[in-house]
Amino acid sequence: MGEQLDRATAHSSPTPLIQDRELGTGTVTLVGAGPGDPALMTVAARDALASSTIVFYDRLGPTDDLASWAPQAELIDVGKLPGFHRVPQEEINRRLVLAAQQGHRVLRLKGGDPYVFGRGYEELVACRTANVPVQVIPGITSAIAVPGAAGIPVTFRELSQSFTVVTGHDPFSDEFCAALVTLVRSGGTVVILMGMQRLSGHLLQLRQHGLTAATPAAVIMNGCTAHQRLVTAEVAQLPHAVAEHGLSSPAVIVIGDVVSLAL
Amino acid sequence: MGEQLDRATAHSSPTPLIQDRELGTGTVTLVGAGPGDPALMTVAARDALASSTIVFYDRLGPTDDLASWAPQAELIDVGKLPGFHRVPQEEINRRLVLAAQQGHRVLRLKGGDPYVFGRGYEELVACRTANVPVQVIPGITSAIAVPGAAGIPVTFRELSQSFTVVTGHDPFSDEFCAALVTLVRSGGTVVILMGMQRLSGHLLQLRQHGLTAATPAAVIMNGCTAHQRLVTAEVAQLPHAVAEHGLSSPAVIVIGDVVSLAL
Repeated sequence: MGEQLDRATAHSSPTPLIQDRELGTGTVTLVGAGPGDPALMTVAARDALASSTIVFYDRLGPTDDLASWAPQAELIDVGKLPGFHRVPQEEINRRLVLAAQQGHRVLRLKGGDPYVFGRGYEELVACRTANVPVQVIPGITSAIAVPGAAGIPVTFRELSQSFTVVTGHDPFSDEFCAALVTLVRSGGTVVILMGMQRLSGHLLQLRQHGLTAATPAAVIMNGCTAHQRLVTAEVAQLPHAVAEHGLSSPAVIVIGDVVSLAL
Repeated sequence: MGEQLDRATAHSSPTPLIQDRELGTGTVTLVGAGPGDPALMTVAARDALASSTIVFYDRLGPTDDLASWAPQAELIDVGKLPGFHRVPQEEINRRLVLAAQQGHRVLRLKGGDPYVFGRGYEELVACRTANVPVQVIPGITSAIAVPGAAGIPVTFRELSQSFTVVTGHDPFSDEFCAALVTLVRSGGTVVILMGMQRLSGHLLQLRQHGLTAATPAAVIMNGCTAHQRLVTAEVAQLPHAVAEHGLSSPAVIVIGDVVSLAL
């Protein structure tokens, strides 16, 4: 028992709260902007924007009113559209650190949540490596809110014991597919982000590992905005339906019985 | 192709935005309050509270300043502590509907996100069944923000292609365990909510399905509050470490390589 506990560590964190709402000079704050609706930003995010002096932002997430939310700040678009890397990640890291070292109150605004496939941890590490104070303000992830706004709860007590959020950027391994199929067959929900370019391939892989053709599925484009578009279909028909209706990236893909609850 | 599309449906939703920020009378708004830090509530949640006339709230989530956020509202605690069901779900549903039918601007404040094991969909259906207008405002889920505030990103590009959020309320099936273990072994993250009462049993089940004893794991109690407590340990030692340090429900359990990134 003593030896076991030697390998365990415990912390009572002093202040994990987002308390530095008036940003310090020479610091970086990584902020999740949520899924697109400006009202779904947090109070902490708006407060941080109000005191920032430079904002590096993405195209994913609400940005139309950025100038009014961050009136003192220089606004720099480092947005990366799918297949079009406007500013490489390493360059973003470098510019965050440099701006902080120049005395800015740096705010990095990211769509969704910084830790959900947002490379937020890489930016955090870059700051820490450079001894720049850094904090993270979470945001509402599109993986949950976009299906929800389209009438699809990611969990429903009668159906699902789990939901899994997956990046669809790369091909799936056989083992990975088999695990996802097992979860869906047990009533769970699989949400794929960044998966539109490989949609047909991924669905084919999942079906080869036992996903039934009639499994309910959905694609939601422009979720949580006034331009939301939703297509629901059985998995076997989804790629055709998506093509027919002209849906494209960025979009959220949902697979599982909960899709049948969509209105 | 025509037949395939007959089975697909497409919608261009008119206004999925949270636009009714001044709540209507005789309506219900289901609001996610986020993980505990009041600053992590959304702008939409605060606006909805400000115009509500009755609030049904949980103990999970920030409630200390509820009277100032919802100055016109009657505040009703329907909180359910683990093992102590203060108000049965059916009774909550009934009271939401009744209050709306009496002309209230009803706000149902729920910890985290209403659709992440929050029974939000059941409340939505109860309102719709009674022809009461209902909308949902998502919240930041503890499943992502609590690990994040403790220094654990749920995804990290070098490690993880997925994260899975699970309710630990019930026992796991063998198939379900095997799928979770596959995901963890491929670098994915498993987050268990409501899992403290069955912690030892669930970890034993997962190990019987191949989860290695040295897999990094963590338990976070009072996450996203000033009283946060974090214990990290290898899976094999986690139950002892948790007992030794006196952590209890409600808490968030994290299993996977990302735990090794905690500071």
